[in-house]
Amino acid sequence: MNHLLVEHDLRDMITKNDEAALAEFCKTTHPALIAEQMLNFTPQEAWTVLKNADIPERSDIFSHLEAEMQIEIIDILPRDQMVRLISDMPPDDRADLFKTLPEERRDAILPALAQAEREDIRRLTAHQEGTAGAVMTSDYATLSPNMTVAQAIDHLRDVAPDKETIYYAYVLDSKRRLLGFVSLKDLIVSRKHSFIRDVMHEDVIFARASDDQEKAADIIQKYDLLALPIVNGGESLVGIITHDDAMDILTQEHTEDIEKLMAISGSHEAGVYMRTSSLGHFKNRALWVVLLAFVGLLSGFIVQNFEDVILQFAIFAMFMPMVADTGGNTGSQSATLVIRALALGEISPKDIFKILFKELKVSLMIGLVLAAFAYGRVLFFGAGATIPEGYSMITIGTAISVALGLQVISATLIGALLPLGAAKMKWDPAVVASPALTTIVDVTGLLIFFTTATLFLGL
Amino acid sequence: MNHLLVEHDLRDMITKNDEAALAEFCKTTHPALIAEQMLNFTPQEAWTVLKNADIPERSDIFSHLEAEMQIEIIDILPRDQMVRLISDMPPDDRADLFKTLPEERRDAILPALAQAEREDIRRLTAHQEGTAGAVMTSDYATLSPNMTVAQAIDHLRDVAPDKETIYYAYVLDSKRRLLGFVSLKDLIVSRKHSFIRDVMHEDVIFARASDDQEKAADIIQKYDLLALPIVNGGESLVGIITHDDAMDILTQEHTEDIEKLMAISGSHEAGVYMRTSSLGHFKNRALWVVLLAFVGLLSGFIVQNFEDVILQFAIFAMFMPMVADTGGNTGSQSATLVIRALALGEISPKDIFKILFKELKVSLMIGLVLAAFAYGRVLFFGAGATIPEGYSMITIGTAISVALGLQVISATLIGALLPLGAAKMKWDPAVVASPALTTIVDVTGLLIFFTTATLFLGL
Repeated sequence: MNHLLVEHDLRDMITKNDEAALAEFCKTTHPALIAEQMLNFTPQEAWTVLKNADIPERSDIFSHLEAEMQIEIIDILPRDQMVRLISDMPPDDRADLFKTLPEERRDAILPALAQAEREDIRRLTAHQEGTAGAVMTSDYATLSPNMTVAQAIDHLRDVAPDKETIYYAYVLDSKRRLLGFVSLKDLIVSRKHSFIRDVMHEDVIFARASDDQEKAADIIQKYDLLALPIVNGGESLVGIITHDDAMDILTQEHTEDIEKLMAISGSHEAGVYMRTSSLGHFKNRALWVVLLAFVGLLSGFIVQNFEDVILQFAIFAMFMPMVADTGGNTGSQSATLVIRALALGEISPKDIFKILFKELKVSLMIGLVLAAFAYGRVLFFGAGATIPEGYSMITIGTAISVALGLQVISATLIGALLPLGAAKMKWDPAVVASPALTTIVDVTGLLIFFTTATLFLGL
Repeated sequence: MNHLLVEHDLRDMITKNDEAALAEFCKTTHPALIAEQMLNFTPQEAWTVLKNADIPERSDIFSHLEAEMQIEIIDILPRDQMVRLISDMPPDDRADLFKTLPEERRDAILPALAQAEREDIRRLTAHQEGTAGAVMTSDYATLSPNMTVAQAIDHLRDVAPDKETIYYAYVLDSKRRLLGFVSLKDLIVSRKHSFIRDVMHEDVIFARASDDQEKAADIIQKYDLLALPIVNGGESLVGIITHDDAMDILTQEHTEDIEKLMAISGSHEAGVYMRTSSLGHFKNRALWVVLLAFVGLLSGFIVQNFEDVILQFAIFAMFMPMVADTGGNTGSQSATLVIRALALGEISPKDIFKILFKELKVSLMIGLVLAAFAYGRVLFFGAGATIPEGYSMITIGTAISVALGLQVISATLIGALLPLGAAKMKWDPAVVASPALTTIVDVTGLLIFFTTATLFLGL
């Protein structure tokens, strides 16, 4: 019933060159699953599988492979097989392949393809990475407004093998401008002799090729669409983004969000941890770490500045790590919640006062609990600490508690404020990465801690 | 062309009670968009919109509203209107509404519904939150293997208005066991007199009602499905999860991942930042903050233990914040990358040695850069610091550099190791939240820092 549950020895079939078994396996197994099992194959082994698959499946399986393996396989193919394989790929996957190909390879392959395919590749690869245009496909179904429903169904039946989806079809005028759309469900339930112009939906939700890919995915999610039409500057239809591509965009954007939040730069592609070299990882991570280490020295200057206080009251040095950690933790929490709510469109910078008021209340509660905790800590377990004559543990406990409470409140508010400020400036709120925030509230926290302490102790 | 671009004054129509304009607006605007504009409406205002919408649209708009508003609207409706509204809802959204209804309200509404609907609500709400069963819908299309293609299309046409999708139809035996599935595209391109049993795909990808909802969403993403059939323990079909629900699951899981990573507990629902009360936020955040503050005291004990060293070499106190921050940052980075790669299924705990070796190389590079940086800092700007007779700045610089390098390496490896360990124990790797990690590597970092320093200085 389900191939997920069956162990197929694909490698065994290859070794035996069992063509019948390979053909049967390719016919009955989902292309994504076949591609997954080919992950560590040599190009020769991969081709042995592919050449035994039927033509439409062959390109499907090939499209599911990673770009590196696709290039390796192309390398070992005779020209006619290579052209066939590339011609049959879904246009968006083919465009992705061409984007990763080195330029001289691209120039070697392009002339072998048909004019229409070359044109298609040129159009699809022309859009900037990260835009809707860069992820759309050109395999969409179109209808004329003057067709009847029966003619439209016949047309969709004819073009079905070549189209990404026939469940949505777009109605265009002579300049390829979007007049409306119909779903196959609409067609099935409509009377056969009705005209498309009378059954189509005129309010088409669309995006522009220059829009952010995330915006397109968000629209697909919000309106539960199977596909979103993409128009160019002249309002002509140039492609569609399908629901499955929208899911992949979401996953990629998730990876990007979470990595940015941890101050990791780079391409933020999903699923490339192992494939990224150690040097690549170093480049993606070191910049922020070094920058923040530099800012961390600011904390050092503050400590240096209050050296005399520490020399007199070593108990303050003891509480320093807790104050710093707690500020970083509460600040990261509020920053994360605000960044996520901004990303989901739940809040916007104009809600700033409502958000700060809410965070103030939350931080007052957390601050109170921690202050009480620190006060108890000083009073009950502070006996061993060296404190100068004339100061009571109660004064010191109060000073530390107040300082800790203030640190929690300020760190929480800073954590909420920075991403809101970034959003207001039209920056990505996630630039206020958690490590950056932790380092910033370390500086403010130590300042608050020592200032409060010296004020309380009258130093 | 697109209502997204047009400003509709919905409130204006309500004030004027312009029924014709409201009806036209509801007919031509996407339900999700109407629901969005009703966000801050009173239940009376919301009902004024809903009652002017056609019956199928009315329940669609209502289903897109938030649970709180749905309950408020139900409250003001006469019984017959309320029953009508609830009966027409998509079964999965209706089940979600019943899950949020207080028990006495549920008991008051249920008897008013038809037997079949009561049964459907009972079945759909019986599954544990977070499972595939809890998010599936019961509005799926089924076919018999002995139908012809023409009969099947006729059947789908008849049931289309009541089904979540007719693009996939499931072929069942008399015990509702899954024999296969056909897509509407398959039916359109097949010969009319063929039997369903001959055109259906027998290898159906499915999930179980007890599976994690994330697993179901992952399958939908991996195989680019429009819908995934869900079977019960007896292998009978009990529901489907559609592609749009899979996107919502992905978004919810991402919110959960990112919040867990920041040590925020709670339900991790997406889009509830503003609606969660301050006390709710406090409860979700305080536990970890307090626990970690407690662990932070451990760092304090270490500082206390090395009090004598700090009293002699105040320059060490100056570098303490930087050492702590840097460990937290590098550890959080490696932890985040490992957690994300685990979540995407790219790596598994058995890759532990490959991962640790990679992280070792990355951390050696980052450690070297930072050690050089710290060495320069001590030598060129350390002039103001008080150091005892008999110690050179070079010794101190070397001690601090080596300590910092060791901290980076150990924190990076701990950051990678903890989520791998959690995954090995079948826990969620994200339990190794960044705040927890930061606090842990603070403790290890201070130990490493002071131990290295005292060894180098021969104290």
